[in-house]
Amino acid sequence: MALPRTDQMQLDRFLERLDQVAAREIGYPVAFDFDYSALVPFLSFSLNNAGDPFMPMTYLLNSHEFEREVVSFYAQLARAPEGQWWGYVTNGSTEGNLYGLYLARELLPEGIVYFSQDSHYSVGKNLHFLNMRHIMIRSQPNGELDYDDLRETLRIRRDAPPVIFANVGTTMKEARDDIGVIRSILDDLAIESRYIHCDAALCGGYAAFLDPPPAWDFKDGADSIAISGHKFLGSPVPCGIALARRSHVERIGHSVAYIGSVDTTISGSRNGLTPLILWYAIRSLGLEGMRERAQRSLRTAAYAVERFKQAGIGAWRNPQALTVVFPSPPEPVREKWQLASAGGFSHLICMPHVRQEQIDELITDIQSAGGVQQ
Amino acid sequence: MALPRTDQMQLDRFLERLDQVAAREIGYPVAFDFDYSALVPFLSFSLNNAGDPFMPMTYLLNSHEFEREVVSFYAQLARAPEGQWWGYVTNGSTEGNLYGLYLARELLPEGIVYFSQDSHYSVGKNLHFLNMRHIMIRSQPNGELDYDDLRETLRIRRDAPPVIFANVGTTMKEARDDIGVIRSILDDLAIESRYIHCDAALCGGYAAFLDPPPAWDFKDGADSIAISGHKFLGSPVPCGIALARRSHVERIGHSVAYIGSVDTTISGSRNGLTPLILWYAIRSLGLEGMRERAQRSLRTAAYAVERFKQAGIGAWRNPQALTVVFPSPPEPVREKWQLASAGGFSHLICMPHVRQEQIDELITDIQSAGGVQQ
Repeated sequence: MALPRTDQMQLDRFLERLDQVAAREIGYPVAFDFDYSALVPFLSFSLNNAGDPFMPMTYLLNSHEFEREVVSFYAQLARAPEGQWWGYVTNGSTEGNLYGLYLARELLPEGIVYFSQDSHYSVGKNLHFLNMRHIMIRSQPNGELDYDDLRETLRIRRDAPPVIFANVGTTMKEARDDIGVIRSILDDLAIESRYIHCDAALCGGYAAFLDPPPAWDFKDGADSIAISGHKFLGSPVPCGIALARRSHVERIGHSVAYIGSVDTTISGSRNGLTPLILWYAIRSLGLEGMRERAQRSLRTAAYAVERFKQAGIGAWRNPQALTVVFPSPPEPVREKWQLASAGGFSHLICMPHVRQEQIDELITDIQSAGGVQQ
Repeated sequence: MALPRTDQMQLDRFLERLDQVAAREIGYPVAFDFDYSALVPFLSFSLNNAGDPFMPMTYLLNSHEFEREVVSFYAQLARAPEGQWWGYVTNGSTEGNLYGLYLARELLPEGIVYFSQDSHYSVGKNLHFLNMRHIMIRSQPNGELDYDDLRETLRIRRDAPPVIFANVGTTMKEARDDIGVIRSILDDLAIESRYIHCDAALCGGYAAFLDPPPAWDFKDGADSIAISGHKFLGSPVPCGIALARRSHVERIGHSVAYIGSVDTTISGSRNGLTPLILWYAIRSLGLEGMRERAQRSLRTAAYAVERFKQAGIGAWRNPQALTVVFPSPPEPVREKWQLASAGGFSHLICMPHVRQEQIDELITDIQSAGGVQQ
């Protein structure tokens, strides 16, 4: 299998371009400090993890054994109740969120989904897809759910069981909805039939290493959690982990079995390489390595806010966040550093690969371009 | 990033095991004759193709340029109307089928989905997920849709617009539902409000190279088509192509824009490596290389049926099928060769990597184990 010459040239140019743009990638929540070259031999096989990773499979070219270790590791980080959880490796957190909402719909067919206006656009897409009733709740200025608005909205609709979609954290400001507070609101209102899904796409990779950790996990009250694998840990392809309380999955399992399937996952054929990638990262870093990366990232974020302030630019971040928010710089600067922007502000996300020199250069670029509008 | 010693040993053992089992993999529709080592440098980047491959993207580490070439290639193979189609690279055909059914539901909210009893179990799962009404239609003994049953069932429900889910081909027997026949039944019954989705997960990779080709594509009447990339073409990770008439996608685009998104794909973050893999395979094989692989596979399938017959085993295949069906051999033989089995029969699928010697050895194994029950 060799490429015609012009095609090889196209591929070479693409690789060059990637090298250039990767050096200035500080605007998206994806780590770049990985090296999975030890896994190259596995590219020779057609790996496929179809179905439940905890069930036997006729097709033997699967990495279920590694997938089980990966989901067990994250179940522990997310303080899932011993033996009372289930999970699988997804193609990313949209699938993990879709899975959580699907479980919620099966358990509470008359439910209404509540989510903040700072939620990722895929939430609306998922709800449309699943045909679920929903109500958007106001956000506080820091991006966090407005708990007063949630409480008032729930109070007048106590007849329909609520499904709370919590962000930990939000895409633009890394605000973290507090699951403990959400749970106490539901308790206060004596709403017993309820479901809490935690979209921990961004923070699920390091929330357990923060001090104090945010209220995001099963012990805090989550019924299901989605975590991205390609964000904090880093991966050449998007992936994630879906986790849920076992009893919920068993309930859905019954309805799926009724249609002749024992497979409760969303995909049919499933990626067998990403469990290997996640496993490799977990094993080679270890818990201590992961904690160290989280601390390094926090230091970088603190450094960035300080440098922005020294430059007279009003930057800020949520407590223990890796995301630094600042007024949008001129277009050429946004383009050079691939800065996502909305509502007049931009952000940089201090993933483990981000270096202080990059932040210095960004600030110099902003100043040369005439500063920001504040 | 280096692994602790015991973990490295676990990985090494896994690689050894894969080498062994890959040599006897003739039961699943996945080609093994690929070599993507030229793409290894791209594993150093966090590629992400989020959103519409035909739209610009702020995050520059995407392979949208290659994705567009891949979907254009398959759109041409599937005789999509020039400029009147849209598509993207999926995580596999379950996603492509989900996408086609989602379009159908948005276009015909009152629709009923019809599919044969030989359909893949994921169809029921998808319909449950999408909350769509559905009716299962009988199959003919060869696995093909029973058109008389379809006609009669449609006739008495002419008030609800039908969504026909056609298999090209089925998982167990590679039967191909004929979209031309389906269309003429709908025409006969004067049903104008209708939708035909073609699940070409298995045959979409080579249907265009058959002579005569089955009635499976847009010109034959399909509204959307799902094709697997990891089956006939071969890929280390599952992937596929979703294609649909542009007008359908634009219609859905409106309802998704209403909820604040311009992204009509199902996933959020999307794999950027698989478009490169598919592009590499297409460019290095070329149309002629792909045709040659299809012909070689057909010859292998013909050889297998002949050899089974010589051995006194009643094997058969559908016209121009790569799937050879035969009575289930004893358990150890099924396990050794990873033969999927259902209803007392097993199959082998003559993907391009399958060699005559493997078939000879399988038949010897069956004979040594005391033959099959016929």
